[in-house]
Amino acid sequence: MRTGEELLALVESYLGELAFTPELGGLEEAVRYPLESGGKRIRPVLCLAVGEAAGGDLERCLPAAAAVELVHTFSLVHDDLPALDDDDERRGRPSAHVAYGEAVALLAGDALLAEAFRLALSYPTPAVGRELAAATLGMIGGQYLDVTGSGADLAELHRLKTGALFSAAVGVALWAAEVPEVEQRPWRAFGDELGLLFQIVDDVLDGDGYVAAHGVDGARAQADDAAARALARLDAIPAETSVLVGLVAGLASRTA
Amino acid sequence: MRTGEELLALVESYLGELAFTPELGGLEEAVRYPLESGGKRIRPVLCLAVGEAAGGDLERCLPAAAAVELVHTFSLVHDDLPALDDDDERRGRPSAHVAYGEAVALLAGDALLAEAFRLALSYPTPAVGRELAAATLGMIGGQYLDVTGSGADLAELHRLKTGALFSAAVGVALWAAEVPEVEQRPWRAFGDELGLLFQIVDDVLDGDGYVAAHGVDGARAQADDAAARALARLDAIPAETSVLVGLVAGLASRTA
Repeated sequence: MRTGEELLALVESYLGELAFTPELGGLEEAVRYPLESGGKRIRPVLCLAVGEAAGGDLERCLPAAAAVELVHTFSLVHDDLPALDDDDERRGRPSAHVAYGEAVALLAGDALLAEAFRLALSYPTPAVGRELAAATLGMIGGQYLDVTGSGADLAELHRLKTGALFSAAVGVALWAAEVPEVEQRPWRAFGDELGLLFQIVDDVLDGDGYVAAHGVDGARAQADDAAARALARLDAIPAETSVLVGLVAGLASRTA
Repeated sequence: MRTGEELLALVESYLGELAFTPELGGLEEAVRYPLESGGKRIRPVLCLAVGEAAGGDLERCLPAAAAVELVHTFSLVHDDLPALDDDDERRGRPSAHVAYGEAVALLAGDALLAEAFRLALSYPTPAVGRELAAATLGMIGGQYLDVTGSGADLAELHRLKTGALFSAAVGVALWAAEVPEVEQRPWRAFGDELGLLFQIVDDVLDGDGYVAAHGVDGARAQADDAAARALARLDAIPAETSVLVGLVAGLASRTA
């Protein structure tokens, strides 16, 4: 059983050595740039940790984990564009469109999404790709609500923008680890609680969302509840889940 | 055996009734808009015609055909954006970003691409999606060359921007029709010639590309050669390919 740090190292090394489609040519540099800006790699680490805990081969889970991180990165690159959030910085570096111009950043985002599907489609089952497509469409729907302020409730917006890809990180891991569909439900229930926990803590750190709706203490209490439910879900799964327990604790107590 | 017109009617009706992911919410209107602006539907009709000629069930080929058209439409919506080609019109109507604003058009393009993969992933084999991912990445690489003027030769740029998706239209049809891989080669050779024919005629109509490089008469001669090779490829396939013969003639003589 690998530790969380070992899983993170595996993710970084896999992403760093990832061979992109040769036809992307000179665009590859702008595709790698946002992918190499660090970040916590929570989703791919979650994917690997679930895959290993569920009895899967870790090597076989890596393309799925990377696919989830590429979809996350695609969304950051497009969301940062001037037409959307117009963010000039991302993780302390110029965002992709500042570094490479809008045209190239737009295409780099498209390429990240298509490469994510290429990775997801490397499995014999189309289920990995299906999971990713559903999550991507949920995220896009969430971003649309965010951009247009279409008045949907906050929980729905967050479920789409953040929860969908967290759930997919668990879902693709289960398929990659060849867990039969009838045995997937408890793992997925865990993933849903973890996504919610991540989002509430995000809002506590940013002072918006759940904090705006429930105050800091109210949001903190909801985060604690989500963490407790996530741990209870894990407890009900007959597998060695200590790395996932650590992940819950890490997400609950994170400060950045 | 359906006629080309019947296949076109099937495509239009399938696209018109296509159920998008509910989570897209209000974005759906901007996703449908560029898809409903007509166009010749050459790629999906080609897909259906190959699928039927290869002995496949037409209904089973429709999601693959639609997926190819959605990828084509995604590329038009993003290419029209101000950061890329900055085209305000598309097929005589305001382009998506003029009709819905840049933010929504960008997200609609993303959604079209993700929906295309959702459709491609509805098959039991991941081969349909793999074909689509490879073509999409080729197209993005071609658009990058076009935008940056990175000095690759014209033939390579066109092979990527146009040829890749033509080839994929044939490729996904073969998988959807469950043609064994060892029997796919002659069909694919036909698709490659057809893509080349389409591109050269495009350049003749626009007065650029092959015309700039070889003059109008030179380009016309190359188009005739490509059409002749496409017909020869069909002739070598032991199947009823009259609809595809008609498609070659239609592409060779088109005036718009």
